[in-house]
Amino acid sequence: MNAPAGSRLSDRQRLAWLRLIRTPNVGPASFRDLINRFGSAETALEMLPELALSGGASRILRVPSRAEAEAEMETAAKAGARFVAVGEPDYPPLLRRMEHPPPLLAVKGDGAVFRLPPVAIVGARNASLAGIRMAQTLAAELGAAGYGVVSGLARGIDTAAHRGSLATGTVGVLAGGLDQPYPPENAGLCEDIAENGGAIISEMPFGWQPRAQDFPRRNRIVAGMATGLVVVEAAKRSGSLISARLAGEMGRLVFAVPGSPLDPRAGGTNGLLKDGAILVTETADILTALAPLSALPPAPPAPLEEPPSFPVAPPPGEDDRARVVEMLGPVPVAVDDVISHTGLHPAQVFMILLELDLAGRLERHAGGNVSLLSGD
Amino acid sequence: MNAPAGSRLSDRQRLAWLRLIRTPNVGPASFRDLINRFGSAETALEMLPELALSGGASRILRVPSRAEAEAEMETAAKAGARFVAVGEPDYPPLLRRMEHPPPLLAVKGDGAVFRLPPVAIVGARNASLAGIRMAQTLAAELGAAGYGVVSGLARGIDTAAHRGSLATGTVGVLAGGLDQPYPPENAGLCEDIAENGGAIISEMPFGWQPRAQDFPRRNRIVAGMATGLVVVEAAKRSGSLISARLAGEMGRLVFAVPGSPLDPRAGGTNGLLKDGAILVTETADILTALAPLSALPPAPPAPLEEPPSFPVAPPPGEDDRARVVEMLGPVPVAVDDVISHTGLHPAQVFMILLELDLAGRLERHAGGNVSLLSGD
Repeated sequence: MNAPAGSRLSDRQRLAWLRLIRTPNVGPASFRDLINRFGSAETALEMLPELALSGGASRILRVPSRAEAEAEMETAAKAGARFVAVGEPDYPPLLRRMEHPPPLLAVKGDGAVFRLPPVAIVGARNASLAGIRMAQTLAAELGAAGYGVVSGLARGIDTAAHRGSLATGTVGVLAGGLDQPYPPENAGLCEDIAENGGAIISEMPFGWQPRAQDFPRRNRIVAGMATGLVVVEAAKRSGSLISARLAGEMGRLVFAVPGSPLDPRAGGTNGLLKDGAILVTETADILTALAPLSALPPAPPAPLEEPPSFPVAPPPGEDDRARVVEMLGPVPVAVDDVISHTGLHPAQVFMILLELDLAGRLERHAGGNVSLLSGD
Repeated sequence: MNAPAGSRLSDRQRLAWLRLIRTPNVGPASFRDLINRFGSAETALEMLPELALSGGASRILRVPSRAEAEAEMETAAKAGARFVAVGEPDYPPLLRRMEHPPPLLAVKGDGAVFRLPPVAIVGARNASLAGIRMAQTLAAELGAAGYGVVSGLARGIDTAAHRGSLATGTVGVLAGGLDQPYPPENAGLCEDIAENGGAIISEMPFGWQPRAQDFPRRNRIVAGMATGLVVVEAAKRSGSLISARLAGEMGRLVFAVPGSPLDPRAGGTNGLLKDGAILVTETADILTALAPLSALPPAPPAPLEEPPSFPVAPPPGEDDRARVVEMLGPVPVAVDDVISHTGLHPAQVFMILLELDLAGRLERHAGGNVSLLSGD
C-alpha cells in the first residue's frame, strides 16, 4: 500500500482513499489488505459490501458516499488543512515505517516540520510547575538544536512541550478530528502551531469528538513519529507509560525525567528508569543519545506489499471460512499459526480475516496477531 | 598483619599496637608493613626511630610512650569503649577485607551488630524533609529485614538513617575520636546507638577533634564496611559522591534515590544514576539487589602477609635509598614499577618506602601507588 514513490495521489484516488478509510470496520490494517488485494481503493470500495457479508456481517456495510467524502474534503480545505497519504512526500517519514500507519492524515500547517529529526515529549496532564518548566526547557533546547518536537496537545506537559518549541517547529497530534481540539482551551495553541512552521495532524474524521479509546491511538502516532520519546512526570498506570511502552516496542529510545519517590507524579518516570529508560536531567542527555541516530541517513521504508500479492489463490469457500473461525477465539493468535494449522493458502486466510474484519468480528493486535471479538 | 585467627591480642600486644598506630606518620599501610617486617608491634616500636632517620626524617620520630597509650586505654574504658584489632572476631568483617583496614578500631556498643549483613545509607547534611523521611524509612525497613545500617553520624540524611534503624542495630562511624561526636548535637544519638544494640566506631585517637581531611577517611570506612551504599539526596561535588566512588572502587553496590532535576539536592544522586547506580524508590529495590549477596557465605578474607615476608634480602644501603628517591616525584607511581626500574630486591624497596613513609616524605595512594610529598 503506497502512493507511487515520490508522487502524489490524484484527487480521484484521494477521494477513494478517504471513503475507504472512513468506512466502518476499515482500519489501517484492513485498508492495507484491501489495497493489496484489489490494487486500488476504488475497486476495494466496490467489493466491500460483499466481503463484509461473506465475513458474517449482520447488516450491510455503510460505505460513505462520494458526496460525504467530498464534504469532508471541503471542510478540510476551509479549515486550511489537507489529507496526506502514506507514501506521499509530506507524510511523516518514521510514521510511514511503523506497523499499520494511518493511510491518510489530516494535516494543517507546514509539512516541512516533518523533515526535522523528531523527538516526542509527553507527560502528566496534572503536571507540577517544575515539570512544566522542565518540559518547556527541554522542548526549547531540542528545538534550538534542530529537532522537531512532537506531542499530544494535552494539558500540562504536552502543552508545555508545544509552547517551548513553537518558534522552532512542533507537531501536535490530535485524538479527535482536526477541528476538534481537546482540551478546548488548546484551540489557540493549535492555530499558533500551524502558523509558526509547525503542524497539527489527525487520523480521525473532521467533526470527530475524541472518545477515551481514541487517546491510545493518538499516543501510538506520537510514539511512532519520533526517534525518541521523553516522559516528563507521569504517575504509575498513566497514559504516558502506554506511550513509552509503544515507543519501546517500536524500537524508539525512551527517556524519562526522574523525580522524588515521594512525588506521585514521578512514580511512572522512575519506573521507566528502573526498566532501562535513559535518565534525563538536561537536554544534553537527550542530544547525546539521539545524535548518532540523527546522523544516520534515514533507513529505507520497510518493504511494502504491492498488488497483486496473492495472484494465484482461488477465492475461499464456506468450509474454509468455518475452519478459520473455528481456529480463532478471544485469545490473540498469530496469523502464521492459523495458516499452518488450517493448511489453507495464505492468501485465502488473509481474505477470510479481512472479511471477518470488515464484518466487525475480528480484532487485530500488535505483531500480526488476531482474535475473534467476544459476542461472536 | 592479623591477630592469630580466631583469637585475640594479649593486653600487652594491644598496648603495643595502640602505641604503633598512634605514632606520627604511621598509617594503616605502614603499620601493616612494619608488622610484616618485624613480626610484632613491639619490635617495630624499637626500630621506628632508626627507620625514620634512614628515610631522611628531619627530627626524631615521637613514639607515644607506654604511659600515654595506657592513658588512652583508660579513657576508652571509662567511656565504655574498647579497641578491636583487625583479625579479631569483633572486627567488622567487610572492613577487614578492604585495602589497608584500620589496625585498631575504638568500638563502643555491641559488636554483634557487625555480624548483621551491612548496608550504608548516606547523604546530604542540608537534607530536605522528604529526603530525611526517605532515609528514615529505608533504614527502618532495611533494619526490619535483618540488615545493619551503617552511616557517618552527620547531620541530615546520616542522622535520619541512624534514627530509622536505632531499634534494629546501626553502626555510626566517627571522623574524630570516639569521645568527640560531630556535630555535637549528635552526642545523644551516639549514646542511643550504643545502648540499643548498635555501635559507634572510630579509628582516630580519643580526644581527636575531626579536621576536614578526616571526613574522607571516615567515608572510606563507611563505604568499606557495607555490601551496598545508598545515597539519599546529594548535591553535585558533595562528600556523599566521594563515598559512592569509594564504594564502587571497592566493589560495593551503589544505590541512589532519584529526584527532580530542578532540585540541587538531587544533582549528585541523578548523576550517580547516569553512571550506573541502582535506582531506589523503595526498600524492595535495595533488598532485591542485595539479597543474592547476603545469601552467599562470607568470602574468606584476602590473603594477609604474614611475617617474615622477605627474610633473605640484605638491608638497603644509602645508594639504594638515593636510587628509589630519584624514581619518585609528586606524581603517584606503582611500587612494582619502582622495583623493576631500580632492579632492587622488592624487600629493599618496601623497606625504603617504609622509611620514607615514617619520615613523613611519602604519600600512599589507592592501588599501591606512592608519591613523594611536595617540599621534599
